[in-house]
Amino acid sequence: MKITRTVKKILDNYESDCPGTKANLARMLMHGKLGGTGKMVILPVDQGFEHGPARSFAPNPDAYDPHYHYQLAIDAGLNAYAAPLGMLEAGADTFAGAIPTILKLNSANSLSTNKDQAVTATVHDALRLGCAAIGFTIYPGSEDQYAMMEEIRELAEEAKSVGLAVVMWSYPRGGKLDKAGETALDVCAYAAHMAALLGAHIIKVKPPTNVLWQAEAKAAYEKAGVDTSTLAARIKHVMQATFNGRRIVVFSGGEAKDLEGLFTEIRGLRDGGANGSIIGRNTFQRPREQALDMLEKIIGIYQNKM
Amino acid sequence: MKITRTVKKILDNYESDCPGTKANLARMLMHGKLGGTGKMVILPVDQGFEHGPARSFAPNPDAYDPHYHYQLAIDAGLNAYAAPLGMLEAGADTFAGAIPTILKLNSANSLSTNKDQAVTATVHDALRLGCAAIGFTIYPGSEDQYAMMEEIRELAEEAKSVGLAVVMWSYPRGGKLDKAGETALDVCAYAAHMAALLGAHIIKVKPPTNVLWQAEAKAAYEKAGVDTSTLAARIKHVMQATFNGRRIVVFSGGEAKDLEGLFTEIRGLRDGGANGSIIGRNTFQRPREQALDMLEKIIGIYQNKM
Amino acid sequence: MKITRTVKKILDNYESDCPGTKANLARMLMHGKLGGTGKMVILPVDQGFEHGPARSFAPNPDAYDPHYHYQLAIDAGLNAYAAPLGMLEAGADTFAGAIPTILKLNSANSLSTNKDQAVTATVHDALRLGCAAIGFTIYPGSEDQYAMMEEIRELAEEAKSVGLAVVMWSYPRGGKLDKAGETALDVCAYAAHMAALLGAHIIKVKPPTNVLWQAEAKAAYEKAGVDTSTLAARIKHVMQATFNGRRIVVFSGGEAKDLEGLFTEIRGLRDGGANGSIIGRNTFQRPREQALDMLEKIIGIYQNKM
Amino acid sequence: MKITRTVKKILDNYESDCPGTKANLARMLMHGKLGGTGKMVILPVDQGFEHGPARSFAPNPDAYDPHYHYQLAIDAGLNAYAAPLGMLEAGADTFAGAIPTILKLNSANSLSTNKDQAVTATVHDALRLGCAAIGFTIYPGSEDQYAMMEEIRELAEEAKSVGLAVVMWSYPRGGKLDKAGETALDVCAYAAHMAALLGAHIIKVKPPTNVLWQAEAKAAYEKAGVDTSTLAARIKHVMQATFNGRRIVVFSGGEAKDLEGLFTEIRGLRDGGANGSIIGRNTFQRPREQALDMLEKIIGIYQNKM
Amino acid sequence: MKITRTVKKILDNYESDCPGTKANLARMLMHGKLGGTGKMVILPVDQGFEHGPARSFAPNPDAYDPHYHYQLAIDAGLNAYAAPLGMLEAGADTFAGAIPTILKLNSANSLSTNKDQAVTATVHDALRLGCAAIGFTIYPGSEDQYAMMEEIRELAEEAKSVGLAVVMWSYPRGGKLDKAGETALDVCAYAAHMAALLGAHIIKVKPPTNVLWQAEAKAAYEKAGVDTSTLAARIKHVMQATFNGRRIVVFSGGEAKDLEGLFTEIRGLRDGGANGSIIGRNTFQRPREQALDMLEKIIGIYQNKM
Repeated sequence: MKITRTVKKILDNYESDCPGTKANLARMLMHGKLGGTGKMVILPVDQGFEHGPARSFAPNPDAYDPHYHYQLAIDAGLNAYAAPLGMLEAGADTFAGAIPTILKLNSANSLSTNKDQAVTATVHDALRLGCAAIGFTIYPGSEDQYAMMEEIRELAEEAKSVGLAVVMWSYPRGGKLDKAGETALDVCAYAAHMAALLGAHIIKVKPPTNVLWQAEAKAAYEKAGVDTSTLAARIKHVMQATFNGRRIVVFSGGEAKDLEGLFTEIRGLRDGGANGSIIGRNTFQRPREQALDMLEKIIGIYQNKM
Repeated sequence: MKITRTVKKILDNYESDCPGTKANLARMLMHGKLGGTGKMVILPVDQGFEHGPARSFAPNPDAYDPHYHYQLAIDAGLNAYAAPLGMLEAGADTFAGAIPTILKLNSANSLSTNKDQAVTATVHDALRLGCAAIGFTIYPGSEDQYAMMEEIRELAEEAKSVGLAVVMWSYPRGGKLDKAGETALDVCAYAAHMAALLGAHIIKVKPPTNVLWQAEAKAAYEKAGVDTSTLAARIKHVMQATFNGRRIVVFSGGEAKDLEGLFTEIRGLRDGGANGSIIGRNTFQRPREQALDMLEKIIGIYQNKM
Repeated sequence: MKITRTVKKILDNYESDCPGTKANLARMLMHGKLGGTGKMVILPVDQGFEHGPARSFAPNPDAYDPHYHYQLAIDAGLNAYAAPLGMLEAGADTFAGAIPTILKLNSANSLSTNKDQAVTATVHDALRLGCAAIGFTIYPGSEDQYAMMEEIRELAEEAKSVGLAVVMWSYPRGGKLDKAGETALDVCAYAAHMAALLGAHIIKVKPPTNVLWQAEAKAAYEKAGVDTSTLAARIKHVMQATFNGRRIVVFSGGEAKDLEGLFTEIRGLRDGGANGSIIGRNTFQRPREQALDMLEKIIGIYQNKM
Repeated sequence: MKITRTVKKILDNYESDCPGTKANLARMLMHGKLGGTGKMVILPVDQGFEHGPARSFAPNPDAYDPHYHYQLAIDAGLNAYAAPLGMLEAGADTFAGAIPTILKLNSANSLSTNKDQAVTATVHDALRLGCAAIGFTIYPGSEDQYAMMEEIRELAEEAKSVGLAVVMWSYPRGGKLDKAGETALDVCAYAAHMAALLGAHIIKVKPPTNVLWQAEAKAAYEKAGVDTSTLAARIKHVMQATFNGRRIVVFSGGEAKDLEGLFTEIRGLRDGGANGSIIGRNTFQRPREQALDMLEKIIGIYQNKM
Repeated sequence: MKITRTVKKILDNYESDCPGTKANLARMLMHGKLGGTGKMVILPVDQGFEHGPARSFAPNPDAYDPHYHYQLAIDAGLNAYAAPLGMLEAGADTFAGAIPTILKLNSANSLSTNKDQAVTATVHDALRLGCAAIGFTIYPGSEDQYAMMEEIRELAEEAKSVGLAVVMWSYPRGGKLDKAGETALDVCAYAAHMAALLGAHIIKVKPPTNVLWQAEAKAAYEKAGVDTSTLAARIKHVMQATFNGRRIVVFSGGEAKDLEGLFTEIRGLRDGGANGSIIGRNTFQRPREQALDMLEKIIGIYQNKM
């Protein structure tokens, strides 16, 4: 596999990492239809844990089968597939080597009474399942945020020492935050920045809204005249907040169902300089052919063809 | 021991496991009168811990003796016998090799003030006692659910690394859940799904009622038109929720005392595609001959003879 | 030392234990005037920790000296002497080999604000002090009961792996329990059963009263017609609840001060099949000669001479 | 590199440390324009974590790039550069060997609901990134203060054993303290003293105000006639409180924005015997040329040229 | 060094200890002007941590310097010097071998919101600093008392295994205790007894008042006719409560400032059989010459010359 110049430039930003970790980042960046472009589309399937199986898979019952998602991600030419332990264990041998995988190490569920997640798998699990990376969620703002950060510190250090990459989901939640705060630009950029400071290689956040939620932050944005008017402008700011573009940032697809709305949003991500999308429910809750068609178009947007 | 085709097909679903773990799954699936059919009946005796000795054994005082249960499970031709540390220690040598055993690693008691269990044995205990598997209970929904999940993560990883199988009891309890929620179909399927995601090889849940408890789940079931009208339909859904049948699921016998009611329920389990039953009080609280007779009939149902 | 048939039969019940642990059980069962009979009288001296030094030793000031208790247990021909770390450290060399000792690994004090104990010594301490066993208290029912059970799980596993025996004090306390519940028959039998399930070799409980405290248990006792009318009947039930006699159970002497009342109680224990008594304050708070005389009589009862 | 007499004398105060740690202290003390004088100016960039990226870097957007700070610290001739994990990982290779670095091992954020910090990096991280020291914040007074002290105990012991230096930020906060207490002279001196007792090599505190906050301390100061009237007098007292000058103490620049005010404050620090300044926002929130100019002047003050 | 008969007899009481620990006890017992007499005077300097630097050292500013205390203890001919990590690190090399040192492993401060201490140093620190013993405070009665006891269990076991001695400060505090209870005779004797049970070699308590605080203890004292009327009688009781004199017990000097009052108190300690005094503020808050003079007289009292 010849690494493209674009990808090589991205890898150079990870200057403290061992060759093993860079190789795994390269595996993801060079895989699939976006391989070599520096852009990524990732399929995450942890919604069964987060919301329950029927809410996740009843709209498209084939998706109850773990093999379905492996095959979908492969056939769509995505860069990687992310899921919790059991989902990967159920297909890791059948699809060994067919697509880079990310083992999600922690998960929450909708029955929970606090804003935390259970750590449900280990770095060793990621190695034995042949994964390219570990995934981990932090909830900045939550009463448990420091404990979560300390968990990922341990897991990330171990992952880096064995040549895995670290993908961090950074979702502000709990504590003083209200709904508006969870997706506000200042909070989202802060969450992305902290993931970078915690040593993430790839950061996943939600597309931020045009809200400035913290009073002191609002004052700083206004004084500096930061443009927050368009999604592209906001994405640009998030990329800046993640070491001025030295870290890969991908954005979730949110709950948008209308395809045109989704494509518009993804154009905004692309125009703001995002590295890509990580898009679950919008993918596997549609019939397979529709999902493949949608992913083809999303990839087209990142290829600047649409 | 020649593994049947049916069992081989089941074993193939555990594609990430080491030969040692598959061999222990095979030991259980090939043992007893249902050996080779892919169906299982397991005797669990942890009620002394959960409810106290007299509530468990006074109806049939022979059952105070740990040897009684080993002998009963053997004579009835069951697939396996599951119990806490002391119960297995008291018979592990006498009955070494006579029946696969499952060491239950955690237990609660009826004096408890919270919805948690104590971890009372270790993977090393399971090895020194010659067990085929470890057993562990989680209480999805409980304030302690994430801590319990993290305990089984550690224990399951260790068990898998030494070739043991992992049996997970997944009983929704505590937190926001009320009585109706604990056995509701959506919650039960969710609990079974989480056990699968946590890496269980064999999952034990209660037969679900025709209740949809979470508002968002209810909407999803109704929109997708999931059939919840019969026990068989609900069991089918639970099997779907556990990786579309890629994981072994067994169901508890509940509190039913009337034999016909019990047999009807087990026919429902069978018709829904369940892998079998795990049935304690209904077994050991009857005189031995009656228990053997009842188990013979249950086995007959799973053999499609009744 | 030739092991008697009675003791050999008891040892056979510990079928999962290593020869080292059986040898230590044998050391205690074969020592002293009751050696070889399967009966035991043990001297425990942890009351200094539990109630303070003056409340424990002021009635007989010689007892402030740790050597006093070693000598008393030896001269009385008891089976074993149990005490916390400092007490054993202060005499372990002088009396090395003279009597089997049990290192009490956890202790509470009367200043405590919760129903827990501090773990104040280790299995390694027991080994370096030449002990035959470790001792540990659990408080079934307490808010901290599961944590205590997890502590003894770890300590017991380690003890068994190095050939020590495990003595468990099981004292219901805290949580929902009131005073009547702490010594009720159903609760006491439950506590003894849990100690057996946790892997204890020797179980210490208090003589139960003729109270059935848990509503559901009361119903079960009444339905099964369990005889609870005499102390002997209740002790018989406790022995049944501890694996039908497969585990050694000894009973504390309580607070009885009147000698005749004490002897009557011990006859009840004996008649119910108890393995013996563990008797502290009643021993060391009397002048030495009176204590020796009393112990001589207690031993006589267990020898069926009185 | 020839160590100056002044620096050698400082190193001699660290009489229990291994040569590796002394070498790393020497690296920092001998580096930059103040090299050899016993004075230090350090650039800390953890404000992105503490206050968020926009509040920190929007005033001077070049500062979003981690390389900016390395380059600034090098070009200004500072002694060392301190930052959290991600910030150092992003430049550690490019600037390897160019300036001593301090890895900040814990960080808080402005969304937090308690007075604690998350431990976000390890001593091993500091070694693999080529750092000269670890940095750690304690909050004396906070409900979590003892846990924080126990964290730094572990990290400091490990750091010292591998030849790293230990820099402690000691910021009174939380618990009984109010705003006035956080910067009061008695509290500040106490905080500095505790950092010394905890084994810090370099201590960072805020310049104390002329407030005596604890009643008993106030009485002691007044009785002893301690001069607290000028900043220089207060700094002198803080130096006394840190082993009578046997430990390096540096002071933060606070929030002062007016350059003359800042220089006046630094003259006070110098005149009181401070070892130097650690100055973040005042540096990187100005345009680069202005920052270099300001740092030149600050260095001049410590060189007694201004 | 020829061990005196008196010291040999004391060492014989530590019958379970390894030669390394006995050698370190001997180092302390044979050092200084009281060397060989079985009596000890120890200088403790942890008041900077407990009360702050100015409250501790402002009355005699030379005492801000860690070297001051080493020199004072040496010049006064004391048996040992005890201090927290930083204080010892700052002089351990200069005064290596000149006086036995005790590393205080935990410390509290006056800003604290709970009755606990932070563990601020390790057994390994004690070894690398050449100490003869570790020191540790427990607060019997505190909500955190069991956690503190478990900390010292771990540290003491490690210390004993590497040949260090264990000095325990046992200060009743918190929980149900009020001010009168903290120094009451029954509580003080209880605290001393628990330290002995926890395996302390040397126990430090406060001189008890003529108060019996616990109702049940009061009854026991009165029934047994324990003499509590004089300090000497109370000290005698405390010595009894610590294994009838088999453990070394030293008493703090309290807050007494008047020299005659102090000497009277020390005569009471001596007459009750105390092993000595541990006396901090009364020492280092006086000018050096006065302190040396006072210590000379205290030593004289223990030598029965005064």
